[in-house]
Amino acid sequence: MPEFLSLISPEDALALLLSHLDPVLSSEDTATEQALGKVTAEDICSQQDLPEFRRSTVDGYALIARDSHGASESLPAYLELAGEVLMGNTPDFDLGEKECALIHTGGMLPNHANAVVMLEDTQVLEAGVIEIYRSTAPGENMIEIGEDIPEGGIVIPKGTRLRPAEIGGLMALGITEIKTITPPKIGIISSGDEVIPPDRKPRPGEVRDINSYTLGALISELGAEVVHYGIIPDNRHDLKEILQIGLKECDHLIVTAGSSASSRDLTADMMNELGDPGVLVHGVSIKPGKPTIFALADDKVMIGLPGNPVSALVIAYILVRPIVELYLGLGTRKFYPSIPAKLTMNVPSQAGREDWIPVRLIKGKDGVFQANPIFGRSNLIFLLAKADGLVRIPPPTTGLEAGTTVTVRLI
Amino acid sequence: MPEFLSLISPEDALALLLSHLDPVLSSEDTATEQALGKVTAEDICSQQDLPEFRRSTVDGYALIARDSHGASESLPAYLELAGEVLMGNTPDFDLGEKECALIHTGGMLPNHANAVVMLEDTQVLEAGVIEIYRSTAPGENMIEIGEDIPEGGIVIPKGTRLRPAEIGGLMALGITEIKTITPPKIGIISSGDEVIPPDRKPRPGEVRDINSYTLGALISELGAEVVHYGIIPDNRHDLKEILQIGLKECDHLIVTAGSSASSRDLTADMMNELGDPGVLVHGVSIKPGKPTIFALADDKVMIGLPGNPVSALVIAYILVRPIVELYLGLGTRKFYPSIPAKLTMNVPSQAGREDWIPVRLIKGKDGVFQANPIFGRSNLIFLLAKADGLVRIPPPTTGLEAGTTVTVRLI
Repeated sequence: MPEFLSLISPEDALALLLSHLDPVLSSEDTATEQALGKVTAEDICSQQDLPEFRRSTVDGYALIARDSHGASESLPAYLELAGEVLMGNTPDFDLGEKECALIHTGGMLPNHANAVVMLEDTQVLEAGVIEIYRSTAPGENMIEIGEDIPEGGIVIPKGTRLRPAEIGGLMALGITEIKTITPPKIGIISSGDEVIPPDRKPRPGEVRDINSYTLGALISELGAEVVHYGIIPDNRHDLKEILQIGLKECDHLIVTAGSSASSRDLTADMMNELGDPGVLVHGVSIKPGKPTIFALADDKVMIGLPGNPVSALVIAYILVRPIVELYLGLGTRKFYPSIPAKLTMNVPSQAGREDWIPVRLIKGKDGVFQANPIFGRSNLIFLLAKADGLVRIPPPTTGLEAGTTVTVRLI
Repeated sequence: MPEFLSLISPEDALALLLSHLDPVLSSEDTATEQALGKVTAEDICSQQDLPEFRRSTVDGYALIARDSHGASESLPAYLELAGEVLMGNTPDFDLGEKECALIHTGGMLPNHANAVVMLEDTQVLEAGVIEIYRSTAPGENMIEIGEDIPEGGIVIPKGTRLRPAEIGGLMALGITEIKTITPPKIGIISSGDEVIPPDRKPRPGEVRDINSYTLGALISELGAEVVHYGIIPDNRHDLKEILQIGLKECDHLIVTAGSSASSRDLTADMMNELGDPGVLVHGVSIKPGKPTIFALADDKVMIGLPGNPVSALVIAYILVRPIVELYLGLGTRKFYPSIPAKLTMNVPSQAGREDWIPVRLIKGKDGVFQANPIFGRSNLIFLLAKADGLVRIPPPTTGLEAGTTVTVRLI
């Protein structure tokens, strides 16, 4: 029996952990102008109708619709010009019967007007008299008060990550300050006796710390706050101490083990000693990333990632990201950006295991992207630096054939 | 003849502008740890081999390959245990014939060893003697010096936007500072007599400024520096003055016109007066965004966008973004994140015009996304706030049918 069959699937592992979590999130006041990428902490309602006045949606003439009834090119209606509506002003006249007013897109309709006829459907006959070539229905080419957003309506639901469009929408309503979720604090610990800081020259046998930086970059890209705990040697005392400090200071901890098996086991042991229920998941049927650990010390999440930088970063994209997003307060409306592409070669896989293959995208002459799998013996981090995204090979299959259309998750 | 046929296509408009541009970009020193999202200003080469020593890729025993020649479960090879390679250390022994050494993933091979046999293919027979059940080839389960990255090799090409994987790769090589492109300065000017700042309560006929904030958010999301010039009334003098100031201080200017036609024409007139060649494009066969203007004053780009907030933001995503990316120094490896989805209803379009339709994504039971077009009379900014992305309707077609698989460009 392949060993992966005895492991939990990535989906089940994540569901198991999430079933234990019900985070209480705190919020803070944020200037809307500074809120790009932040997540709303409450439903945001409009305090006003939008628009607040009846607006024209075209350049043309405001009129009373029935005055244009039956008008056509061969039989125009003739209306008297009552004036021009200046942008940004309330018209200083009302419209009488058989009258019209020059109006620009966004302009305010005069009283009694109930439609706008487009400029191209009119002609100036003589000074003060306009020919109308088209019958216009009440409400045509204009918006009623509150038609876009009624007062009190929810304009942006809780749990929305704010994009340029939402920032603009809030400004349109004059909402210049909002409540956003306080970003969670996520601590990152690198362990391993062979691991040294990047600014030091490694002696033979040593390697520079990569995981603190790849994971830190990803976590801060997601919008959480990163707390770096540096590199901890592989022993019970040091590891336990830093985990205890981290649990006090952070909402989550991510520990990347040294690359040896004993280092990984030590991580799990220590996580079990720090609170209940301890380790929930130890080993996931996913490649790369099999030695992944999910643990809980009371209500704080600890995640153990493999020391191998490719495994650690792939698992961070696939399994850590949804956990962070829960603490970011993100609702269900989230998408993982991707590009559809055709696989350029066969990719073998083991049935029962979920594989994620790094691929590089190449745009074909037909505009269709090709996904070129990147293989490497060493799982060096440059494997991912060369890749544009990851392709999932689902557990039931034994691989994907060249030519298959796949969805490349961008990294 | 539909009027759009006489306009330039978005593709040609962009190509025309880009053909005039050959920006000289400046660069600055950036700490690698702070370089996420920035763009490399030069090819980055490795100053060292990676790995710098021969490393094991598994947990097992380092050995001389020929000593395991012919070994199998029924006929194991017996090797003497010479010692254990400690993580982060140079082994303090060399391997002799018929000897092996316990080694962990990432450990340094002792001298004379040329392969590693995995732990699961071995067994400890008695203290100091290891049974090997598998014939091992030279080079198996190990990486040679420089196999990942040879000294002097280009590891990250110029024009790369740094993601977590690149940050990690640089750290692996001890490159803690790099040269990145200095973000371009992009000035944003809102014009229109009816436009007021968001913190003011509009009088009847006035609307709050949206475009400064949506465009500012998008530009800063892309990685450029935003310079806000606020709201300028629709007259020649004020507009020309602010354009002159902006041209001095910024690399580009983006002007959003008031929503009336006269305001848009004024923008083009002023752009023509400020330098050569002046207006290159005035009107593009795209919806929304037909009144888009591209102009050049000597070597500085000026972009005129429609005052309508939806048009302005859609054009910023579709046409302004590639221009900004040129000044960000981004190479050709850039992708516009998207989600494939099935259109839920027919969307009509006019042949000869490129349409971009806002859609909201809904995940179907089968895991396939459905793209629900969002229509709205007023082109209010909340149309885009409700949307997850945009769907392109290519110019030759007269629309897309329900059920068509489309690529939704996320916004």
